Amino acid sequence: MQLYSFHRSTASFRVRIALNLKGIPFETISVNLTSVPGEHETDVYRQLNPQGLLPTLVDGKVAVHQSIAICEYLEHVQPEPALLPGHPADRARVRGLAAALASDIHPLHSIRVSRHLARAFGASDTQRGAWVRHWIEEGLSGIERLLANSTQTGLFCHGDAVTLADAFLVPQVIAAQAYDVDTARFTTVAAITARCLTLPAFEAALPARQPDAVPA
Amino acid sequence: MQLYSFHRSTASFRVRIALNLKGIPFETISVNLTSVPGEHETDVYRQLNPQGLLPTLVDGKVAVHQSIAICEYLEHVQPEPALLPGHPADRARVRGLAAALASDIHPLHSIRVSRHLARAFGASDTQRGAWVRHWIEEGLSGIERLLANSTQTGLFCHGDAVTLADAFLVPQVIAAQAYDVDTARFTTVAAITARCLTLPAFEAALPARQPDAVPA
Repeated sequence: MQLYSFHRSTASFRVRIALNLKGIPFETISVNLTSVPGEHETDVYRQLNPQGLLPTLVDGKVAVHQSIAICEYLEHVQPEPALLPGHPADRARVRGLAAALASDIHPLHSIRVSRHLARAFGASDTQRGAWVRHWIEEGLSGIERLLANSTQTGLFCHGDAVTLADAFLVPQVIAAQAYDVDTARFTTVAAITARCLTLPAFEAALPARQPDAVPA
Repeated sequence: MQLYSFHRSTASFRVRIALNLKGIPFETISVNLTSVPGEHETDVYRQLNPQGLLPTLVDGKVAVHQSIAICEYLEHVQPEPALLPGHPADRARVRGLAAALASDIHPLHSIRVSRHLARAFGASDTQRGAWVRHWIEEGLSGIERLLANSTQTGLFCHGDAVTLADAFLVPQVIAAQAYDVDTARFTTVAAITARCLTLPAFEAALPARQPDAVPA
């Protein structure tokens, strides 16, 4: 399989974790979102992904878009280890957590949104930073309540085994830290994230560990 | 089942369509997002949905959050009529379309984002309207390319049977029209939407048909 990915892309990070957890070897094809124009805006990439967004997973003749759809696809083609629990209500909770992370936080602080704030409102770097932190803090507060208030939360987001919810949580926390959000105050989120990052599948998926990462 | 919903909530609209398509009877419990404070911000609602977002589906003792997780849950508990196709690659395409609609358009023009633009940048009504239209037009352009460029698109988003992708598309198009976006220029999107709206399951889910809708 090939993963069209960028080291800083939060959505790509989720898929890297899922691939690693399942032990599926993959080739990373870097698509630079920060060059001008971005490599995701080229006709070549748009033929593969008409939205022009990352990531895209290519499995033979199949191209899959959207991190959640890619992870569900991986669950079909390689069921073990399972990243979704067996019972419908448990699956719903894991998918709900993943969707909350994918829909209610990250879309509001993506690079394209930050650029449009500058165009539309003349937003300064300081204002754009505050915007990003507002939505990450609001979003992680909601995730913290979902996790802390539920007896179904265990060592990981759902019970004591890693699920897709963890694969979606950790990239959001790492992104938050990159924007100087104090994530330690989300105590359940922080504990689960720290536990995940002791696992090689998560650690190897970190932005800094990717072949297209710029050395600090 | 009970659906905590609001007539204008795009995410609730998706779930109403899925429930109707499956012929599952449900009770609507209205949660007014536009009152001050919003009914979704109360402690009572947050006990049910710690994010304080709509919709929530309650099925006996199970509360499910996030429209995509709710629809997947419905697919488990009542498989027929299926809203996801059988083959993994087809399922991935349908889920990818649904995720593109759920993650890349609607979150950028929700009521809470519009309010925060006013607070953070002093955005006027005109500027907020332009913001909303920018993201809807960009988003629907991407969806149009995904649909128009694929031989897998048929009478509906995926082939000639209704899927979850259609249940996610129509609410976004109706929301676009409410913000005065000319959706006719997205010709594939418009044709599929018109076809869906001839079906009672879609028509009965329209905002104006809900018990909490304000008469025009």
